[in-house]
Amino acid sequence: METLKIFAPATVSNVTCGFDILGFPVEAPGDIMTFRKTENKEIRITRISGADSIPLETNRNIAGVVSRKMLEDNNMPFGLEIELDKGIVPGSGIGSSGASAAGTAFAVNVLLKKKYTEKELVPYAMLGEMSASGTRHADNVAPAIYGGFILIRSYDPLDIIRLDYPDDLYCTLFHPLVEIKTRDARDILKKTLALDAAIKQWGNVAGLVTGLLKKDYDLIARSMEDVVAEPVRSLLIPDYHKLKNAALENGALGCGISGSGPSVFALMRGEKTAEKVKNAMVKAYRDTGIDFNAYVSKIATDGVKIIS
Amino acid sequence: METLKIFAPATVSNVTCGFDILGFPVEAPGDIMTFRKTENKEIRITRISGADSIPLETNRNIAGVVSRKMLEDNNMPFGLEIELDKGIVPGSGIGSSGASAAGTAFAVNVLLKKKYTEKELVPYAMLGEMSASGTRHADNVAPAIYGGFILIRSYDPLDIIRLDYPDDLYCTLFHPLVEIKTRDARDILKKTLALDAAIKQWGNVAGLVTGLLKKDYDLIARSMEDVVAEPVRSLLIPDYHKLKNAALENGALGCGISGSGPSVFALMRGEKTAEKVKNAMVKAYRDTGIDFNAYVSKIATDGVKIIS
Repeated sequence: METLKIFAPATVSNVTCGFDILGFPVEAPGDIMTFRKTENKEIRITRISGADSIPLETNRNIAGVVSRKMLEDNNMPFGLEIELDKGIVPGSGIGSSGASAAGTAFAVNVLLKKKYTEKELVPYAMLGEMSASGTRHADNVAPAIYGGFILIRSYDPLDIIRLDYPDDLYCTLFHPLVEIKTRDARDILKKTLALDAAIKQWGNVAGLVTGLLKKDYDLIARSMEDVVAEPVRSLLIPDYHKLKNAALENGALGCGISGSGPSVFALMRGEKTAEKVKNAMVKAYRDTGIDFNAYVSKIATDGVKIIS
Repeated sequence: METLKIFAPATVSNVTCGFDILGFPVEAPGDIMTFRKTENKEIRITRISGADSIPLETNRNIAGVVSRKMLEDNNMPFGLEIELDKGIVPGSGIGSSGASAAGTAFAVNVLLKKKYTEKELVPYAMLGEMSASGTRHADNVAPAIYGGFILIRSYDPLDIIRLDYPDDLYCTLFHPLVEIKTRDARDILKKTLALDAAIKQWGNVAGLVTGLLKKDYDLIARSMEDVVAEPVRSLLIPDYHKLKNAALENGALGCGISGSGPSVFALMRGEKTAEKVKNAMVKAYRDTGIDFNAYVSKIATDGVKIIS
């Protein structure tokens, strides 16, 4: 029977001021997922490597939930065996569950002979996010499916827009190996916002989007400020401000929390500056005694990709 | 002595989702202001036509406040006689005080041999706004000074960005002749916002800015939604929803409250549609028994202009 192997990228969501509406994938890290069609209609997660905490039971596994819904909706006469090689650490804030959800939606769509558009795949992938975090968000799965810099203008109706962005925009990802559950990071947020703070945030969102579209690096840099989530979520990340200062002092356009953390991301013009920022963040964190992973990548123009 | 006559345009601020950060001037209506240098250092408002409520006393008149500060800061050896022909009704929500403030800042700068940049003029004009409404806002004066579609990304520091926008974007302005004080319209707003509403608003702001820059009319239309000010401020405008429905049913991309109201604006592609929308709004309002003014204009690429 047919076998499909795909790469599902990590994603940075929120992107400072773009809380719940902006995101982009990176070239690495990412997950490898293998989908094998079976003659019986069962869906089985046969192997998971790289993450102990992810359940194998189909109904509790994101890939299981997403693929079952897609196969059932289409009354397909086959089942699946799914293998998951996690390159993204769960709870890292760089879209671990989003990669599984988006990768599954993408792969099952290939097995369904690309019946669905990218936009139609997003709600399927969001089901997976919902099962993992309890919230209906698209700012990891949409960038993972579409590739590039993505705006989710609206959730209801779902409205996803590809933003132009400068070619030489690089991202440094720094993942301190402490776990924050998306659910906890949501709970720490205030449910209301002062009007003044909200105005600041949407002024910056408008600036960031304009900066991306016009390739205006100064404007991107001036706009990368988050007055909503960073003030509280940064409290959950040991030595957050050391990391941020290291990034900004070494040429980052801006720096913030990736998703709900604990990963921290920075955007730079060019790979050389991105490497310099990575080294500075590594140096700044060495004394904490906390392990970490660090990556440099272009903003990925592709989302999920077929490997074989 | 030297005499300078200028035109200061009406402006639409907020522009639905862009509360406090977006605005543009129109080609009409506007004020005519005449500035005459005098040998003594006194500043006198010698004549005001078209508005009974505006005080002649220099210290209580916007043009007086702005020009005095500019002349004093530069220790200039002359004074001014200022005549004001109001084409913009005070309290209309289309930047009546903003036009006086921006017009004065612009004109005095000409008399100062253009010492100041546009950006440097904005804080002077904001002083005038402050004296009139008690709030420090720039979303009328910045568009009136710069021209075009303007984003105020940040107030502190002041960061003003010209946005690209489609050439054939037209505005219909409909002014019901009921007065709303900016101060009252501010007071009716809630000082806090649900996080969900704020996310909707900045998703729309990002969409509107992207739509303008990419000349994507559908995206402009989808993004023109205001979940912050419209729900409460529309209560102050008699038959607001009749006007809005008339606009949307006749081809408007979007429709909302101009500034703090009561004027209502709509954006259209092309002059013909703008005229059609104007006629539909006029028809929808005829039964209310409330007088009104209605205008059609391109978004003005110029702000304040020298007449002679």
